[in-house]
Amino acid sequence: MYSFKNDYSEGAHPNIMQALLKSNLEQTVGYGMDSCCEDARRSICEKIGRQDADVHFLVGGTQTNLTVISAALRPYQAVISAETGHICVHETGAIEAAGHKVIAVAAENGKLTPQLIHNTIDVHTDEHMVQPKMVYLSLPTEVGTIYSKQELEDISVCCKENGLLLYVDGARLASALTAQGCDVTLADLARLCDAFYIGGTKCGALFGEAVVLLNNAMKQDFRYMIKQRGGMLAKGRLLGIQFGELFRDDLYYRIGQHANRMAALIKQACQSEGFTFVTDSVTNQQFPILPDTVLEEMEKNYLFEVWEKRNDGYTAVRFVTSWATCEENVLQFCADLHNACMSRKA
Amino acid sequence: MYSFKNDYSEGAHPNIMQALLKSNLEQTVGYGMDSCCEDARRSICEKIGRQDADVHFLVGGTQTNLTVISAALRPYQAVISAETGHICVHETGAIEAAGHKVIAVAAENGKLTPQLIHNTIDVHTDEHMVQPKMVYLSLPTEVGTIYSKQELEDISVCCKENGLLLYVDGARLASALTAQGCDVTLADLARLCDAFYIGGTKCGALFGEAVVLLNNAMKQDFRYMIKQRGGMLAKGRLLGIQFGELFRDDLYYRIGQHANRMAALIKQACQSEGFTFVTDSVTNQQFPILPDTVLEEMEKNYLFEVWEKRNDGYTAVRFVTSWATCEENVLQFCADLHNACMSRKA
Amino acid sequence: MYSFKNDYSEGAHPNIMQALLKSNLEQTVGYGMDSCCEDARRSICEKIGRQDADVHFLVGGTQTNLTVISAALRPYQAVISAETGHICVHETGAIEAAGHKVIAVAAENGKLTPQLIHNTIDVHTDEHMVQPKMVYLSLPTEVGTIYSKQELEDISVCCKENGLLLYVDGARLASALTAQGCDVTLADLARLCDAFYIGGTKCGALFGEAVVLLNNAMKQDFRYMIKQRGGMLAKGRLLGIQFGELFRDDLYYRIGQHANRMAALIKQACQSEGFTFVTDSVTNQQFPILPDTVLEEMEKNYLFEVWEKRNDGYTAVRFVTSWATCEENVLQFCADLHNACMSRKA
Amino acid sequence: MYSFKNDYSEGAHPNIMQALLKSNLEQTVGYGMDSCCEDARRSICEKIGRQDADVHFLVGGTQTNLTVISAALRPYQAVISAETGHICVHETGAIEAAGHKVIAVAAENGKLTPQLIHNTIDVHTDEHMVQPKMVYLSLPTEVGTIYSKQELEDISVCCKENGLLLYVDGARLASALTAQGCDVTLADLARLCDAFYIGGTKCGALFGEAVVLLNNAMKQDFRYMIKQRGGMLAKGRLLGIQFGELFRDDLYYRIGQHANRMAALIKQACQSEGFTFVTDSVTNQQFPILPDTVLEEMEKNYLFEVWEKRNDGYTAVRFVTSWATCEENVLQFCADLHNACMSRKA
Repeated sequence: MYSFKNDYSEGAHPNIMQALLKSNLEQTVGYGMDSCCEDARRSICEKIGRQDADVHFLVGGTQTNLTVISAALRPYQAVISAETGHICVHETGAIEAAGHKVIAVAAENGKLTPQLIHNTIDVHTDEHMVQPKMVYLSLPTEVGTIYSKQELEDISVCCKENGLLLYVDGARLASALTAQGCDVTLADLARLCDAFYIGGTKCGALFGEAVVLLNNAMKQDFRYMIKQRGGMLAKGRLLGIQFGELFRDDLYYRIGQHANRMAALIKQACQSEGFTFVTDSVTNQQFPILPDTVLEEMEKNYLFEVWEKRNDGYTAVRFVTSWATCEENVLQFCADLHNACMSRKA
Repeated sequence: MYSFKNDYSEGAHPNIMQALLKSNLEQTVGYGMDSCCEDARRSICEKIGRQDADVHFLVGGTQTNLTVISAALRPYQAVISAETGHICVHETGAIEAAGHKVIAVAAENGKLTPQLIHNTIDVHTDEHMVQPKMVYLSLPTEVGTIYSKQELEDISVCCKENGLLLYVDGARLASALTAQGCDVTLADLARLCDAFYIGGTKCGALFGEAVVLLNNAMKQDFRYMIKQRGGMLAKGRLLGIQFGELFRDDLYYRIGQHANRMAALIKQACQSEGFTFVTDSVTNQQFPILPDTVLEEMEKNYLFEVWEKRNDGYTAVRFVTSWATCEENVLQFCADLHNACMSRKA
Repeated sequence: MYSFKNDYSEGAHPNIMQALLKSNLEQTVGYGMDSCCEDARRSICEKIGRQDADVHFLVGGTQTNLTVISAALRPYQAVISAETGHICVHETGAIEAAGHKVIAVAAENGKLTPQLIHNTIDVHTDEHMVQPKMVYLSLPTEVGTIYSKQELEDISVCCKENGLLLYVDGARLASALTAQGCDVTLADLARLCDAFYIGGTKCGALFGEAVVLLNNAMKQDFRYMIKQRGGMLAKGRLLGIQFGELFRDDLYYRIGQHANRMAALIKQACQSEGFTFVTDSVTNQQFPILPDTVLEEMEKNYLFEVWEKRNDGYTAVRFVTSWATCEENVLQFCADLHNACMSRKA
Repeated sequence: MYSFKNDYSEGAHPNIMQALLKSNLEQTVGYGMDSCCEDARRSICEKIGRQDADVHFLVGGTQTNLTVISAALRPYQAVISAETGHICVHETGAIEAAGHKVIAVAAENGKLTPQLIHNTIDVHTDEHMVQPKMVYLSLPTEVGTIYSKQELEDISVCCKENGLLLYVDGARLASALTAQGCDVTLADLARLCDAFYIGGTKCGALFGEAVVLLNNAMKQDFRYMIKQRGGMLAKGRLLGIQFGELFRDDLYYRIGQHANRMAALIKQACQSEGFTFVTDSVTNQQFPILPDTVLEEMEKNYLFEVWEKRNDGYTAVRFVTSWATCEENVLQFCADLHNACMSRKA
């Protein structure tokens, strides 16, 4: 069995494991105030070209989203998200548990637009309704698509004009930054957002997400928020060491590139057989719509997620690749897919 | 410089690092549903002699406390804690942020008693006040003391008679279970509590706490709570692997024993010089009250925490040991302490 | 100027004012434990034919909804509502502020159906998503429509089969119960729901809503919830006196009938001119779509709310009637509407 | 039976009842935007000499406290209160339910001091603890005492120097402002506090508390907070009308004076018999410590609260007076007390 279920099936990139091992017996202070974290922060600030950014390391994505969002909003304020957004669907109401409404917006290809944001603002007119105050978007989106630099610029302008904060969830940011056709850089994110996070868990680390705060108001007392929400790791150095490695010699980008290349092979294999996709993903998640008979065959050797059941003999599925995905296994998968399609036609 | 500041200054016990390294490229499913977690759960259930216990792995202590407590209480219910309790003092109001009052009780040696619990219940008489529903205690306490089996039995009876849940925070449980004079076992905790957690972070792991739920009502939907509060690790196997190692060949106990033995050396050194202590700790935290002149000398080579400033030329300080504390360094520390005391008298 | 803006433009029905005045100097105990509240509870229990119901009096609708819903749900549980539901739109995120997601469902005529509920359950599959646990519906709906007894029976069966609680918001219940074609009684609500509330504020009282709890689990400690959420009135007798009057000699029904009759006059006037409506309301809110030129004329003498601006020269507006709406003014309104339409055609 | 149990045993001052009756059929807009509320706001602003104050009307005290405090604090911030403070004891954890820790401080006579505030700040040193951000005090205190102008000045200076907000709970403010020896005025409160509230419920109204906001940051979007917490009354005019009356011709002060004069009679009666008191109250609550035998006698004709049971044959009790307390009944009470004491000695 080989798994394409997700990008957290294995441990961490070997560079990271080595760094953890090597430093294991060194003594450091706790809670992210150590020199490993300091070094990693410096690397990230250099990469984004903003010495004034605050960088904090947290363990996981849901924790990061709930901490950032609840730090930014007053109790009656709400966050706007595409209805496919991770905070809308897959965080068990963590944002609501922190007291805030997530305003879910139907959005093509999982992408918000200035028009959608405007429409949302327009219907929230007074104190009998929540006050939209933040725009949350994911790069890449939960359905594998990306925003162009121009699209982000437009959203950023729309946010500024309307007093909204812009926050980008970069759980799979390595994949977006290195995707074919992507013209967005870390420096662009720092310029256009109030806050964003650089995902580690799904991009080669054992765990960890690096929150980058640009907005001064959001910086204040952020460590209180991390601690209160249970996100302050005692051995914080583990996060510093990992992000130090991810941003040494562009490892983060190489991880994204590899995952994307593996995903592209799967995409091409599906396209060759003439199948369509839920979205035109250029990142490490692919959502082909495959015949049930073919899937039955593929399930014998591969793990993957059912995305959406249909009633026409086809099912949308999801294949995810990562830094650890083995090219050999992918090529075998492609060959097996072709064979399954052949048998079907026969 | 050698640090006695805390028990999370280093990485993890070498056995754990080796296990992580060895399994690094194996594929597993996410979120704690993998076989490593299953194995670790089985080990723990055997150790406590309760096959019906639910065991969940979380990353850190504050996260664990807020998740367990908010899972157990209805909105108007409160938790009783010694005023030195971790949830009272050092979790940035995490329990209150989850909506619940922590009723702080002044308690000698950091230890609750049936009498103190009764007094608290007596003054909470109707719906204009919160309803006490849970007793939280720490083993060892935050000031290094432990409860005897009889003391825990009495508290457990008191809780049952008054419809209170009993929850034990075992952040440093390895140290308590192996402390001189301790007659409490994991099986006792399982018998007497509704829930408790076995600390990993401060007992040899990189991170991780194992929640053991005995009360059936608390078991229901607990994974929803973990996910919502941001405590569900994507690569959950990391927790399973670590607890698997901690409970292989009694490593957990050996870790506690070593830490305690190192702490006892420090304790004896202080006693030899005639110094007193904040509490009579038998675990891996020692709280001697030392002359300021001696501390000035010791600060040159050792890191430790100031516990309480006084105005009589003495200061209460805290020395913490762990699995990683090196005997050589401790012996040097004891010698240095003796020398500092000699110079002082001279 | 005459206002059709809402059903809380005036004070209270004269019977209520008299009762308040008459009892003003009598001494009673506080917080709803007085004999006036006891009497009103008894009246309501008789009316619904359920001696086992718990009846609590709160001040306003948002307060009532947030108290009932947060009393019923565990932290990760969510409430299903039509997207036009009051809790979805007009309560400033009060339910989310209490920690719970409101799952908004697009629903024709503001009405939920078993099918819509099923669809919602189907997509909430595991602990990465909230757990739907309650169905919230309004009778009448926020757009003036009502549920038939059979529709409520079907929803109730669907809820029971799926372990969902059913809660009905009766802010304007007097109007629904007396609407043309309504075959639902208070006894039906008590039989089919786990909880519902009988609206006072919009049905003739100065303020006040009577929560009726049928589900035993929801009854437990409900007064703690009321007090904690700030809904326990010190002079609770004011609520008892008002509901006592509302349920004396069927005043509540007479209030609904009058409001409905006034609304029907407005409806007929609009229909006579050939105008259409947003919904086919049989209750005290009417949502005609009127020409902008006519509205300009009517605005000179009447207050009402714009419901939805359109781009075709028409605007949907809302006219609301109440126990206090004066027939004379309504007839004048109808005449004025006719004249405005005549001038327009001329 | 005559009740001295509390100051909310009757309805409202006759002036208020007449004003409500007189305006009953007038149409106004909802939610406190009507001209009655505007007028009352203007009266209060004049009284306090601050045209820039924002005045909002809420229904009850717990609601007011939770709304003001949660509007002012970020999630990790806490409020300092005397341990006898209403928010500490008698609001069922409403502040904690809004996410904030109440730091309870042991305080003589229920009164905070700069020293107590300093001590609290000193032990809250970093992000592992909550951040004290607001001081809450009650005037009069829950045990009937008052602060002098100098005491309030000193606390205000202490707050400003330490970046703390000062909030005064004036549930029984009428009694404090007119107490013997009180040199504090409404204008002083406006000058020294960031926010305070003028109690109506316990000072002659049917219900209602007027929040006065001086701090500009606290003013922002306060109506969103009121609405979200369920405190926005649909028929908001009821609050405007009541506060309009309370501040017409100094009715508020006359109410306080009468209550205090009635309380003083009770105090003198107890003093004449040589009894002591829990506190030296100058306001409308008296806490004498009376012989159990005398109390047994008095219970036959009077209702009052037991404050604290003792083991020496005496019990501390509470007698409360109000605008409605009848002098005739008080004189009878004093005579009965004297007789009971006589029989006891005989």
